[in-house]
Amino acid sequence: MKFEEVQKHNSRSSCWVVIAGQAYDVTDFLNEHPGGPSSILRLAGQDATEEYEPIHPAGTLDAHLPKEKHLGPVESPVAGSVAAGPPMPLVKEGEVPPLSTLQNVDEFEAAARQGLSKKAWVFYSSATDSLASLQQNRLDWTRIRLRPRVLRNVGRVSMRSTFMGHDSDLPFFIAPAAQARQGHPDGELCLARGAARHNIPYCTSTYSSVAHKELSACLAAEKKGGALTFQLYVPVAKPNASFLIRDAIKLGFKALVLTVDSPVIGKREEDDRYKAELDHAAGINIPRSLSTEDNAPIVRGAHSSTLEWDDLSWIREQWGNTGPVILKGIQTVEDAVMAAEAGIDGIYLSNHGGRQMDYAPSSISTLLEIRKYRPDLLKKMEFYLDGGVSRGSDVLKALALGARAVGLGRPFLYALSAYGTDGVCKLIELLNDEIQTTMRLLGVTDLSQLSDYYVNTTALENELPSRVDLRERSKL
Amino acid sequence: MKFEEVQKHNSRSSCWVVIAGQAYDVTDFLNEHPGGPSSILRLAGQDATEEYEPIHPAGTLDAHLPKEKHLGPVESPVAGSVAAGPPMPLVKEGEVPPLSTLQNVDEFEAAARQGLSKKAWVFYSSATDSLASLQQNRLDWTRIRLRPRVLRNVGRVSMRSTFMGHDSDLPFFIAPAAQARQGHPDGELCLARGAARHNIPYCTSTYSSVAHKELSACLAAEKKGGALTFQLYVPVAKPNASFLIRDAIKLGFKALVLTVDSPVIGKREEDDRYKAELDHAAGINIPRSLSTEDNAPIVRGAHSSTLEWDDLSWIREQWGNTGPVILKGIQTVEDAVMAAEAGIDGIYLSNHGGRQMDYAPSSISTLLEIRKYRPDLLKKMEFYLDGGVSRGSDVLKALALGARAVGLGRPFLYALSAYGTDGVCKLIELLNDEIQTTMRLLGVTDLSQLSDYYVNTTALENELPSRVDLRERSKL
Amino acid sequence: MKFEEVQKHNSRSSCWVVIAGQAYDVTDFLNEHPGGPSSILRLAGQDATEEYEPIHPAGTLDAHLPKEKHLGPVESPVAGSVAAGPPMPLVKEGEVPPLSTLQNVDEFEAAARQGLSKKAWVFYSSATDSLASLQQNRLDWTRIRLRPRVLRNVGRVSMRSTFMGHDSDLPFFIAPAAQARQGHPDGELCLARGAARHNIPYCTSTYSSVAHKELSACLAAEKKGGALTFQLYVPVAKPNASFLIRDAIKLGFKALVLTVDSPVIGKREEDDRYKAELDHAAGINIPRSLSTEDNAPIVRGAHSSTLEWDDLSWIREQWGNTGPVILKGIQTVEDAVMAAEAGIDGIYLSNHGGRQMDYAPSSISTLLEIRKYRPDLLKKMEFYLDGGVSRGSDVLKALALGARAVGLGRPFLYALSAYGTDGVCKLIELLNDEIQTTMRLLGVTDLSQLSDYYVNTTALENELPSRVDLRERSKL
Amino acid sequence: MKFEEVQKHNSRSSCWVVIAGQAYDVTDFLNEHPGGPSSILRLAGQDATEEYEPIHPAGTLDAHLPKEKHLGPVESPVAGSVAAGPPMPLVKEGEVPPLSTLQNVDEFEAAARQGLSKKAWVFYSSATDSLASLQQNRLDWTRIRLRPRVLRNVGRVSMRSTFMGHDSDLPFFIAPAAQARQGHPDGELCLARGAARHNIPYCTSTYSSVAHKELSACLAAEKKGGALTFQLYVPVAKPNASFLIRDAIKLGFKALVLTVDSPVIGKREEDDRYKAELDHAAGINIPRSLSTEDNAPIVRGAHSSTLEWDDLSWIREQWGNTGPVILKGIQTVEDAVMAAEAGIDGIYLSNHGGRQMDYAPSSISTLLEIRKYRPDLLKKMEFYLDGGVSRGSDVLKALALGARAVGLGRPFLYALSAYGTDGVCKLIELLNDEIQTTMRLLGVTDLSQLSDYYVNTTALENELPSRVDLRERSKL
Repeated sequence: MKFEEVQKHNSRSSCWVVIAGQAYDVTDFLNEHPGGPSSILRLAGQDATEEYEPIHPAGTLDAHLPKEKHLGPVESPVAGSVAAGPPMPLVKEGEVPPLSTLQNVDEFEAAARQGLSKKAWVFYSSATDSLASLQQNRLDWTRIRLRPRVLRNVGRVSMRSTFMGHDSDLPFFIAPAAQARQGHPDGELCLARGAARHNIPYCTSTYSSVAHKELSACLAAEKKGGALTFQLYVPVAKPNASFLIRDAIKLGFKALVLTVDSPVIGKREEDDRYKAELDHAAGINIPRSLSTEDNAPIVRGAHSSTLEWDDLSWIREQWGNTGPVILKGIQTVEDAVMAAEAGIDGIYLSNHGGRQMDYAPSSISTLLEIRKYRPDLLKKMEFYLDGGVSRGSDVLKALALGARAVGLGRPFLYALSAYGTDGVCKLIELLNDEIQTTMRLLGVTDLSQLSDYYVNTTALENELPSRVDLRERSKL
Repeated sequence: MKFEEVQKHNSRSSCWVVIAGQAYDVTDFLNEHPGGPSSILRLAGQDATEEYEPIHPAGTLDAHLPKEKHLGPVESPVAGSVAAGPPMPLVKEGEVPPLSTLQNVDEFEAAARQGLSKKAWVFYSSATDSLASLQQNRLDWTRIRLRPRVLRNVGRVSMRSTFMGHDSDLPFFIAPAAQARQGHPDGELCLARGAARHNIPYCTSTYSSVAHKELSACLAAEKKGGALTFQLYVPVAKPNASFLIRDAIKLGFKALVLTVDSPVIGKREEDDRYKAELDHAAGINIPRSLSTEDNAPIVRGAHSSTLEWDDLSWIREQWGNTGPVILKGIQTVEDAVMAAEAGIDGIYLSNHGGRQMDYAPSSISTLLEIRKYRPDLLKKMEFYLDGGVSRGSDVLKALALGARAVGLGRPFLYALSAYGTDGVCKLIELLNDEIQTTMRLLGVTDLSQLSDYYVNTTALENELPSRVDLRERSKL
Repeated sequence: MKFEEVQKHNSRSSCWVVIAGQAYDVTDFLNEHPGGPSSILRLAGQDATEEYEPIHPAGTLDAHLPKEKHLGPVESPVAGSVAAGPPMPLVKEGEVPPLSTLQNVDEFEAAARQGLSKKAWVFYSSATDSLASLQQNRLDWTRIRLRPRVLRNVGRVSMRSTFMGHDSDLPFFIAPAAQARQGHPDGELCLARGAARHNIPYCTSTYSSVAHKELSACLAAEKKGGALTFQLYVPVAKPNASFLIRDAIKLGFKALVLTVDSPVIGKREEDDRYKAELDHAAGINIPRSLSTEDNAPIVRGAHSSTLEWDDLSWIREQWGNTGPVILKGIQTVEDAVMAAEAGIDGIYLSNHGGRQMDYAPSSISTLLEIRKYRPDLLKKMEFYLDGGVSRGSDVLKALALGARAVGLGRPFLYALSAYGTDGVCKLIELLNDEIQTTMRLLGVTDLSQLSDYYVNTTALENELPSRVDLRERSKL
Repeated sequence: MKFEEVQKHNSRSSCWVVIAGQAYDVTDFLNEHPGGPSSILRLAGQDATEEYEPIHPAGTLDAHLPKEKHLGPVESPVAGSVAAGPPMPLVKEGEVPPLSTLQNVDEFEAAARQGLSKKAWVFYSSATDSLASLQQNRLDWTRIRLRPRVLRNVGRVSMRSTFMGHDSDLPFFIAPAAQARQGHPDGELCLARGAARHNIPYCTSTYSSVAHKELSACLAAEKKGGALTFQLYVPVAKPNASFLIRDAIKLGFKALVLTVDSPVIGKREEDDRYKAELDHAAGINIPRSLSTEDNAPIVRGAHSSTLEWDDLSWIREQWGNTGPVILKGIQTVEDAVMAAEAGIDGIYLSNHGGRQMDYAPSSISTLLEIRKYRPDLLKKMEFYLDGGVSRGSDVLKALALGARAVGLGRPFLYALSAYGTDGVCKLIELLNDEIQTTMRLLGVTDLSQLSDYYVNTTALENELPSRVDLRERSKL
């Protein structure tokens, strides 16, 4: 087929695109696209390879587009389409400071901001509404003070911790974050390598831009350690989760981390604005349907909006005894109680990095809420946290209050974007340094020695909710 | 009459103006003008059409100026007077960002600020004294945090609410705000159209710059829904309120919203400064009389300064069974008690958008005060709030604490100023999106499910008054 | 004597100066000068008229310098000495905005800052150390919120208040502040005129740059009202206070306001720096003696550093029944108790406008402290406050908490510096407007109706001292 | 030996340097250097005199480098090596404001910042991680308010205090701070002179860049007063502390101040970054080993990381009855209890100027913690504080809460860097002025009159830890 033929199908009624030299008819798929129709329409009748590649793992087209919509090769490839050869880093050396001079987690963000495309920066950094949740996540860590003990032999320290079914060298993990190939051609492979080399878990996103099979192979090839766990967004068609779970079991993922805070996608304004400005420039105007009628599409509904407590039993059944089942996105003591009563193994306190609901509690304040109203839960389940973690001291604050480990998401995206696998490893090393230095200054040599006596949380406790709905338990 | 004749009457002792080609003698009216004499004196002996038009609805001159002061047509119309033809938008396209790229309520303010005349901007945006009330209104919303519940089926949500005697599609309404024609030639008509098309109430101001009759006709013509309610400022001559009420009944207004926070007009410094600078430039110097003698004019007294609880009975009588009577501007639990004992149907907590008294409580903190000291009142009357609402989450916070609906004023003025009716509709749609998205993330599908368990109000509760005067009830 | 002769006496060992054409030998006086020796030494052997005049009232030289040090007229007066003729305003029109456009108290400060000499600005505006007291004074007013009551007949309001033995038209007074002739040639006369024309008290400073006799005559000449009260700094030689008191009685001052917070002068760094830079430029270097030996001069000791409770009896005796005796500068409930037990009539809570001790309590927080620990005192004595008052609402907050009246100091200096008597009057009018407008919006028509129910002071109450030394009473 | 020979040994495998005309083989010493190997490697094969001199006291090479590594004189001294003659000030006159115009402690920091080398500035000013401890130190002082008493005879005041076994003229001392010769050629001699001339203690650092013997001689030579106390970092080889202690006894040091907060050196990012950038420029890349294996070097472990409570007995034994033993770096009530039970004489509350652990409690908040949970300890031991002290009022706040004296560290480094001995004296005089002025304004004439009634600490008390581990005592 000639490219001129493709160019004629440039509208909503007939929309073709070229990807890697092949033409596809995506007209019927427009409304099913999780990113919305306009991100495809902007490329209607054009070569979309450059936009498509960094977001979608291999095999995506085969999995989602019926065979008859694969229209075959385009005869004369367009000038300017993606050339063959090894992928080039997106961030050029010289655009960022030398890696050896970086001193803390935040400097990776600054480096990435200099080098990333606007599209990737906006996707990685954006958060919901007025950014109140994003900022509170950071702020709340700073409002906890430490209580160092002196004159203890701290010559040798151990930072080992067992969590998510893995013996980890360090008490943190790589939190799920999607579309890493927007930042670096190796994408999530950098994360797998870092996790392997430093023996920490990496919780892959459902929306990894590198196929899970490749990540699994990459981790194994390193022969050093690490573990993969599987973050699951249940799809709009809930039963389709089964396929994803079976695949994760087959690939040896050690834990199932079920995201429960995303019945819809948060209103991330920078991201929405970026797309609205592109659409405006392209003359595309598809207003978001706001209907709440029974058959209307659900606003911002990329995954299942109907996932509920009763679904946990069949999900558990699919996963079997493969490893622990963890709920990610719990934000109240009430839901922690519900999870305990549902027999869940672990709770991952998170407000999704401030990307879902604004004015959500920070994960550390939720942990304090649980300590206040139902401290017994901390003995029944493992607790994880993420959101705004930027220091080894943050990790230790969480552990002193009962968490088993802490996740970091965006910092790893920034590290790989600016420096690839080396950046990921450096980030882990910086945290290692901060954690062991802070442990020694706290007077502890093993994480098990930490307790709430090592933290002063009064400032946060003064703002905990004065009432919670513990009646709820009886409703189960 | 020749224009030269008009020009001679350019002083306080004889003051004529031309409006739409007709001359008027306003000498005796100078001291009665609610905006003060200097705003007329600045135009003495001149064509005042351009200044007069955007503020006064049709029929104002007939209603307020005795027939003998209508001096008839001016022979040679002045160059530069308002030309015939359809009115032009005051804000030009290109001065503001494309409407489709706006992401939140505040961006309408930024857009309007770019495009509005200084006079209109100052009138719309100004607030009292040091802006403490204005800023606290915004701040207090941000100090309430949300408590999201997970794993609930939120596929379908309903945002319907019945309030002010109307079945509304959304739990908010257009709050009263005056002089919309300063921002857009269609003025308040834009608001009526928006209310109709999205089926929400619009509470018209006594000082609408479009006549109430036209608004009523406009809403009906849309044939879509919506409702008008009537905000009443009781005039200096209290009995004149009867005429206004009867007119509202005749036009089918569904509720009477009686403003009780304005015995005088707040000291809005930006507005006062703007006028003082004009006066200084024009050489006019009429210092505000500060006397408190019995026969002196009341400082800043544009409406009745003597309206009191005893007046409610005859106002109710005038209004009859037309619909609920609501008091707008209640700011203490004490006055909420008084209102309940007076048999009022609804309480509209408001500090007038920070335009009346500085250091007033925000409406949401007053609601918390009522919950603390007299929670029973929430079951006896409907509660409304306004002031600083800029997010769907603000609306839900108010509802979780017992409000029936929330009003927005300035944002609608900004939306219509920058984009006309389309702006009004877009603003409603943005809030619709935010409300339904936040509801789903909170785990509620119907507004009736909201309760105080969904909010953490500890930060605000820590600053509520430690004593209130509940003895007052017995004084009634 | 020739001026050349004067010029030879330009050192610490022999120091002459010319003032208004007369030569004086001030060698022995250098160490007695309340402003320290270097401010004279900088002018040794020179014509000092321009520096001397705006600070010292007529008669100062006669009162303080022995007759034999008056060396007689200087033959050839220097060019550039102060010329005859009416004094010129120091701030020129055009340097400040038109008075009619000023909207609030703070704008007088901005205007004065533009027009004043650096010396005067530094003297008026400086405060102690890190400015913490200065800033807290302003901040604490803003942390009190008001609780407005609605639907009350507020057509007529009265702002009359009786205090300091005077029936005042308004509940505030002009607080003592010195050296007004540095800002305007008429100096304190502007204050006397303003107090007379608006019938409020003016509390003159011991260090008025216009003689008290002139102020008294000026007030009487206005024939409008007002009152003078007398602020007393007890001199280093305590008994000399008697002369000052007798003079005040003779001139008809209505109250004695004894400053008790100034055993030494606070470390006002801007002021000290200004002088140190002048000294450095002039090559003068007289380090402050820091000795605490028995016969060493007291560091920063301009007035009596030994004034104590026992002195009150003879001071009272001197003053007789002339009017109330008020202690200015009380800052703790403990000292309020002491004052009550000493039979004092009134307490003037003040931290001296933040000019004395840093981290002092604001006067309004001291009032709350007294309300918390010894509310009975409010019925036994009159209470006054000053410090950071910039709004009519501040005045009403103080009155609602039990104060009888409120003083403003710096704002009046700024007003007279920028606009003379007109500025003083305008400032009073602005406050009048703010007070009556806020009263109406609060729903009160007479100051006696105010009570603590009209204010929410929780934010300040949360930071009151948790313990006070009420045992102290028994020590008297 | 010729310099060309030295130049060949410029690598990790063979590393020679020239210091003051002598060559040294430091290859084997590289890994033992407390500052890490890279700071030597940067100078491998070069003349290192200029870098070496300001950091190391005389005799350092003899003490630490085996005789056989002293390679003898270098024949042709390099141009640019340090010339003979009297040392020149590092900060030039004119780079800083005239000393007589400085008004407060902070202005010395500003002056030093202008004049210091980047290396010295970074070393002096840097603090750990996010600077939270550094900033909290400053902030917490400002959150304590004072409660001044009036009408007391404060003509004469005494600021004398006996502490650390010395009768001091003032209630503060020079806190240990190292490497003063980076700021001024006379280095710590300036501190000894200041301490002598104003009769206050100077607590010398283990790492003084002037030998302790010289400091002792200098103090004696002044013949004015003062005292030296000895701050001890226990070396990695703990028993080596004995030599240091014996030396201090011999030199007449009056107290032993044992630092207990430094099992490792804090992560001071500005310092680390400065070195990383130098290394990057020099092509040196020695990543910090992060291993926690048994035989790995301890990360950031410059001193003993195994010092523990049990070591106190032999340290005491070494010190004998020479004077009090004080623990520096206690930060919890729990460790204060431990110290009391161990029979320690004094406790020096400190977070090491914010240089060790981030989010550490400020020393004043630890003092409040002790007052809350174990006030009896204040009677059993002497308490000292440092950290963020910048005002005489800070000193008095600490004393009112039970401290015996307060230390200042960085301010003295800044003062000597910018102005040498004169700066040190001026700094002491400024504090003298502030302390006596504030005492008079507080109404106290002797430090023993101070009590907690003179301070309002409610703001800090509201954030103290709600639980402490007082069970710990029984573990001893």
